[in-house]
Amino acid sequence: MAVLKQERAVRTRAHIIRSAADVFDRLGFSGASISKIVKESGTTQGAIYFHFKSKEELAYEVMRAQPEVVVPQLGAEGLQRLVDTTLVWSRRLQEDVILRAGVRLATDPACVIAFDVTDSYGDWAGIFEECLIEARGRGELHDHVDPRQAAELLVGLLTGTQMYSEVVSGRADLPGRMVNAWRLLAPALAVPETVEALRADQERIAALCG
Amino acid sequence: MAVLKQERAVRTRAHIIRSAADVFDRLGFSGASISKIVKESGTTQGAIYFHFKSKEELAYEVMRAQPEVVVPQLGAEGLQRLVDTTLVWSRRLQEDVILRAGVRLATDPACVIAFDVTDSYGDWAGIFEECLIEARGRGELHDHVDPRQAAELLVGLLTGTQMYSEVVSGRADLPGRMVNAWRLLAPALAVPETVEALRADQERIAALCG
Repeated sequence: MAVLKQERAVRTRAHIIRSAADVFDRLGFSGASISKIVKESGTTQGAIYFHFKSKEELAYEVMRAQPEVVVPQLGAEGLQRLVDTTLVWSRRLQEDVILRAGVRLATDPACVIAFDVTDSYGDWAGIFEECLIEARGRGELHDHVDPRQAAELLVGLLTGTQMYSEVVSGRADLPGRMVNAWRLLAPALAVPETVEALRADQERIAALCG
Repeated sequence: MAVLKQERAVRTRAHIIRSAADVFDRLGFSGASISKIVKESGTTQGAIYFHFKSKEELAYEVMRAQPEVVVPQLGAEGLQRLVDTTLVWSRRLQEDVILRAGVRLATDPACVIAFDVTDSYGDWAGIFEECLIEARGRGELHDHVDPRQAAELLVGLLTGTQMYSEVVSGRADLPGRMVNAWRLLAPALAVPETVEALRADQERIAALCG
């Protein structure tokens, strides 16, 4: 019984996060409210306050749920894993509310004041850095490449490129921008044999995202 | 007399834009108002409405005034001119209100609805593309580099990197991030002789910005 109850709590929590993401994506942090999230989720105010103590905490948890949407789908290793992560992200950001809300919250000046948005940048930088350290171990990177620096550069590139793509095309051209970015970045990071074997095109996105 | 009057009008317009930038930088687009800009500028509401028809138009003109803050200071050509533009921008963004307000407005979802923020991304992309076309003419670029694609990638990188730097260090580490970025990007864009001659370090920033 205790296990069933716990499972239900985990499902409810995940459902509330997704409903909150939907509201934050549409209305932004300032426009959202617990009562709107109650309405969207079809749960009660009590259920929400059982799991989260405030709108700020809910927004923070939405922001930190981003990597889970992308990372579980990936099988590759090293630099290909890094490329795949960015390609899946660029495609899923077009419709997944957790990714859409996450990036909106992380770049909203109102959120910088309300809670620690740096964790969102740090989560992604950590994931990218891990791939690059793995890539280094596999002999894929140029000697002069610093995994942490390159990871943070990529987070900056992705953050700004999705904004550019959002204003010019509503993010329709974002996967294409990521493919173009890898054409330039791959030789900057990796040795020629790795660049040669790397798959970073629209076919790869289709294979990963279906 | 007419010339004197015109000169005064140009000065007043520039003064209003800088005062408006100060208000937008502190309060954001939604928090700013014409009456706050009147107060900041020490001019009258009539003077402001003589030059700008609305808060939206003022915000738009602040956004489009960004390149003027950076570009007039540059003497170099080709890729070095591009590098210098980004280095000066990364340093000046720390204190220049037109650059600070410009990037805040261009990345504010409220502004996307109020006026055409794409022009800000397009202005910078055009300036970067021009440098890259000049670099191509000087034999500095790899054959596979597309000037427009590389220019738009750079705009995305700068937009997101200043946000990353803003949340982790209040932009104190932004010039250092640009220096690191060029260490990775220069070999991706340029032939070895050009990379060798390129100056993209803290000394270059000091020489350009004083």
